[in-house]
Amino acid sequence: MDFLSLFLIDFVKQLQSPTLAFLIGGMIIAALGSELVIPESICTIIVFMLLTKIGLTGGIAIRNSNLTEMVLPMIFAVMVGVLIVFISRFTLANLPKVKVVDALATGGLFGAVSGSTMAAGLTVLEEQKIPYEAWAGALYPFMDIPALVTAIVVANIYLNKKKHSAAAAHSTVQESLSKKAVAAGDYSDEQDYPSNRQEYLSQQQDPGDNRVKIWPIIEESLRGPALSAMLLGLALGILTQPESVYKSFYDPLFRGLLSILMLVMGMEAWSRIGELRKVAQWYVVYSVVAPFLHGLIAFGLGMVAHYATGFSMGGVVILAVIASSSSDISGPPTLRAGIPSANPSAYIGASTAVGTPVAIGLCIPFFIGLAQAIGGMSPLP
Amino acid sequence: MDFLSLFLIDFVKQLQSPTLAFLIGGMIIAALGSELVIPESICTIIVFMLLTKIGLTGGIAIRNSNLTEMVLPMIFAVMVGVLIVFISRFTLANLPKVKVVDALATGGLFGAVSGSTMAAGLTVLEEQKIPYEAWAGALYPFMDIPALVTAIVVANIYLNKKKHSAAAAHSTVQESLSKKAVAAGDYSDEQDYPSNRQEYLSQQQDPGDNRVKIWPIIEESLRGPALSAMLLGLALGILTQPESVYKSFYDPLFRGLLSILMLVMGMEAWSRIGELRKVAQWYVVYSVVAPFLHGLIAFGLGMVAHYATGFSMGGVVILAVIASSSSDISGPPTLRAGIPSANPSAYIGASTAVGTPVAIGLCIPFFIGLAQAIGGMSPLP
Amino acid sequence: MDFLSLFLIDFVKQLQSPTLAFLIGGMIIAALGSELVIPESICTIIVFMLLTKIGLTGGIAIRNSNLTEMVLPMIFAVMVGVLIVFISRFTLANLPKVKVVDALATGGLFGAVSGSTMAAGLTVLEEQKIPYEAWAGALYPFMDIPALVTAIVVANIYLNKKKHSAAAAHSTVQESLSKKAVAAGDYSDEQDYPSNRQEYLSQQQDPGDNRVKIWPIIEESLRGPALSAMLLGLALGILTQPESVYKSFYDPLFRGLLSILMLVMGMEAWSRIGELRKVAQWYVVYSVVAPFLHGLIAFGLGMVAHYATGFSMGGVVILAVIASSSSDISGPPTLRAGIPSANPSAYIGASTAVGTPVAIGLCIPFFIGLAQAIGGMSPLP
Repeated sequence: MDFLSLFLIDFVKQLQSPTLAFLIGGMIIAALGSELVIPESICTIIVFMLLTKIGLTGGIAIRNSNLTEMVLPMIFAVMVGVLIVFISRFTLANLPKVKVVDALATGGLFGAVSGSTMAAGLTVLEEQKIPYEAWAGALYPFMDIPALVTAIVVANIYLNKKKHSAAAAHSTVQESLSKKAVAAGDYSDEQDYPSNRQEYLSQQQDPGDNRVKIWPIIEESLRGPALSAMLLGLALGILTQPESVYKSFYDPLFRGLLSILMLVMGMEAWSRIGELRKVAQWYVVYSVVAPFLHGLIAFGLGMVAHYATGFSMGGVVILAVIASSSSDISGPPTLRAGIPSANPSAYIGASTAVGTPVAIGLCIPFFIGLAQAIGGMSPLP
Repeated sequence: MDFLSLFLIDFVKQLQSPTLAFLIGGMIIAALGSELVIPESICTIIVFMLLTKIGLTGGIAIRNSNLTEMVLPMIFAVMVGVLIVFISRFTLANLPKVKVVDALATGGLFGAVSGSTMAAGLTVLEEQKIPYEAWAGALYPFMDIPALVTAIVVANIYLNKKKHSAAAAHSTVQESLSKKAVAAGDYSDEQDYPSNRQEYLSQQQDPGDNRVKIWPIIEESLRGPALSAMLLGLALGILTQPESVYKSFYDPLFRGLLSILMLVMGMEAWSRIGELRKVAQWYVVYSVVAPFLHGLIAFGLGMVAHYATGFSMGGVVILAVIASSSSDISGPPTLRAGIPSANPSAYIGASTAVGTPVAIGLCIPFFIGLAQAIGGMSPLP
Repeated sequence: MDFLSLFLIDFVKQLQSPTLAFLIGGMIIAALGSELVIPESICTIIVFMLLTKIGLTGGIAIRNSNLTEMVLPMIFAVMVGVLIVFISRFTLANLPKVKVVDALATGGLFGAVSGSTMAAGLTVLEEQKIPYEAWAGALYPFMDIPALVTAIVVANIYLNKKKHSAAAAHSTVQESLSKKAVAAGDYSDEQDYPSNRQEYLSQQQDPGDNRVKIWPIIEESLRGPALSAMLLGLALGILTQPESVYKSFYDPLFRGLLSILMLVMGMEAWSRIGELRKVAQWYVVYSVVAPFLHGLIAFGLGMVAHYATGFSMGGVVILAVIASSSSDISGPPTLRAGIPSANPSAYIGASTAVGTPVAIGLCIPFFIGLAQAIGGMSPLP
């Protein structure tokens, strides 16, 4: 009951935060038929600035970290970020009528990290006087960026494979393919391709024609506007001294520019919210289960680091909290640019409306309790 | 003489303020044939950000106000804002050769509130140690936003009626309409329709064909980009907690973005300044008389609140000052987006070049004197 | 050796500064085939804001200066700024295969002033307790703006003359012109015209047809978007009170917007870096020699002011330092907009990669030493 009231308080607070307020505002004005339009060139530069800032933040955090000290938790953070995307690929994406790109974008968001959830976790640890490494907060880019990159790359591989097999199916129509395959070949790009059918088709085709080369797609994804900007920011943050423009420009403008983009995404989400009618329940189930599952995986890996290198139990909790969090800030613009065909109603709805309240209201107390139960952690005298 | 020198000092200071300086700068570079162009997509996003900020400012002010305490002055503020627009419709708009949309836009600006004029009024009251309610300044959005909305809606109703009767006139040409009506039907959209002729036409037509439905036009106006953005900001300001993006983004960028838009409006105004040749004197007369007239109406309503609910005489003066002020900041971008066919040389010229100096230099001392003469107000001991 | 290590330290620091970091970042992502695109409308508004800010900065500095006191050094600053461009026209531009527009843009950058180089000079003077006039730093816009204006005007005159003689050459083809002239007539606008050939052609043609009227080209240059915005900012800075928008908008956003433009210029530079293969050595020679040459000219003129009006030896050093500096901030956006056909790899490469380290690492100590050798300057007791 206490958990539930915490959950509800956080839920209402989330709704009033500028990020979600502008998103919902966008949905409402779209529903009311507003003629408001944000020009495409403006969206492009906003996305560029947001992603450059996300990269710069990560890069500067990495440059200021003592990497040797944090090497094992860091590797685990990267692993968890990547793993979360693949979990969504093999769970959510396979549920009936759920689109694969939507599931991957959702997985990307749940793999990415929410700065505010992490901050809430750090605050609770400090209130309870539980010690943790000062650099533990710097683990977040190592989970955040790999998760977003993985989601975009896997989605592009999937979309390419789909197009490829659709084309292959078309090209062999005259050779009396089964009725089923013909039907499959008619699926439009917009619609999603049932993944088991696709595999069936893959086996049918000549492997030489059908195999999709993975590496060019990864390269292509990295060259796309979204990942270019983010990786550029990351490299500039690590290798140069961009602090002056970061502090005077990219950082202070971030939330305001995000509010405009959230408005746009709200208007886009409204026009596609109907697609969710038959699958919304799966997103709710995923969004409640995933934060616990991801957090437990990270908690387990954190315990390995605890026994192997003395990583503090407070640090283990932080690793679990950032794994259970889902990005409300860095993720949406990245995924909008990187997987344009994914439905923002699905991934933002799942993440911000359910995932974040679950992570803050339920997972933080759960993982602190778990760590205390294991006993390696106790308040300082 | 003292009034005149105050007026002139304020006039020169106005000319040097960034808002007017960029406006005049735009007119001058347009006159010199500059090839400077601000892209349309940039103007669109600037207008969006300005109007969202205007709405947010109003919404936050309303959320932080104790509405029950200020209910009567608040209702009077709304009434004055709406009334001022209708006054311009029935005075300025009917003067010979004055265009109706220009008159309505001017009325909208004079109904809207100048933050700096209000601040000047508050400063003088404080200097003279005249007490007033702390929330009196929060009355401004209740006059500002209704005036701008009314101006846009009334202008759209007018433009629709005009189009409608022009179309009707055309359709009945074969039925031997009078020569006059045919000529009237040939007026282009750009040109203004003499309003008495239009009424003449309206009576000629079948009422079933000719009646313009008001509600769809109001709906249409509210859905337009200008009012959508302003009302969205208003709703977000009232219902959510947008302070973080307001303080970090919309508020600090406001004046700078406005300077760019004023430059654009200066360039636009230059190209249409010729239209004012034959009517400029009417705008000057209106701009000198209107601040006193509007202020007196508000002063009278304020006195009603004074006797009915104990609204302070200082508050009455503030209500009169915000009524006599004309918007130099929030109004121009709103009207440019909401009534694109109105001539900015007319409404900004009237408001900023004459109306504001009159309001600051003449009306503030006048209403303070009036209140003191009535005697309900005196310096604190 | 000490000079060289100073030079190298400064060189590496330059590479890490946001300006150069984003430039190099742009080159690298262009080389890697990134699909990142900054929309043209965004570049337009960024250039407008940067140039308005540059003008405002100069204008405000001029308004706050006591011009009568600084009249002679001020005139010398203007003279040096203009002269540097003509020096580049008659040296660098005449070197084999060097394009005239690239040379003029480079001259413009070397005539313009680097705020950070000047700041470094002022710091060294203060560290060594060498006195100088408080207004000496305000000399910079008097060199900066004339140099950029001169470069753009001279480049436009050159391009017009070239087009004109090419057209003339074409029109007289039938009258059996020499084979050489015909070939010359086929040069595209993009390619550069060997200047001696052009003069040869000029003499061949009827002078009445061939003379390019200078004044319309100057007028045309001043009306172009680049100089319009800069001169507008200058006028507003001198005549009005734009401090509020300057401090809240144009100044704080400057470096961030510049970082985006530098990224764009880096991508542009990469695509044209091949043009430099055969001429890069000339740019290196120019960039090493020019700072000393320009500084010595300014030093000589400064000595005239020293003996004529008592201009301090510290002031003479400052004049020499701002002459030896080349603009890394105000120049590139101005020249990109004013001379679009010039190759940014040439002028930014010359200025930022060689000119600035030479000016900071070598010229500052050189001119301080020179002033001390002349003896008019000594540390205060």
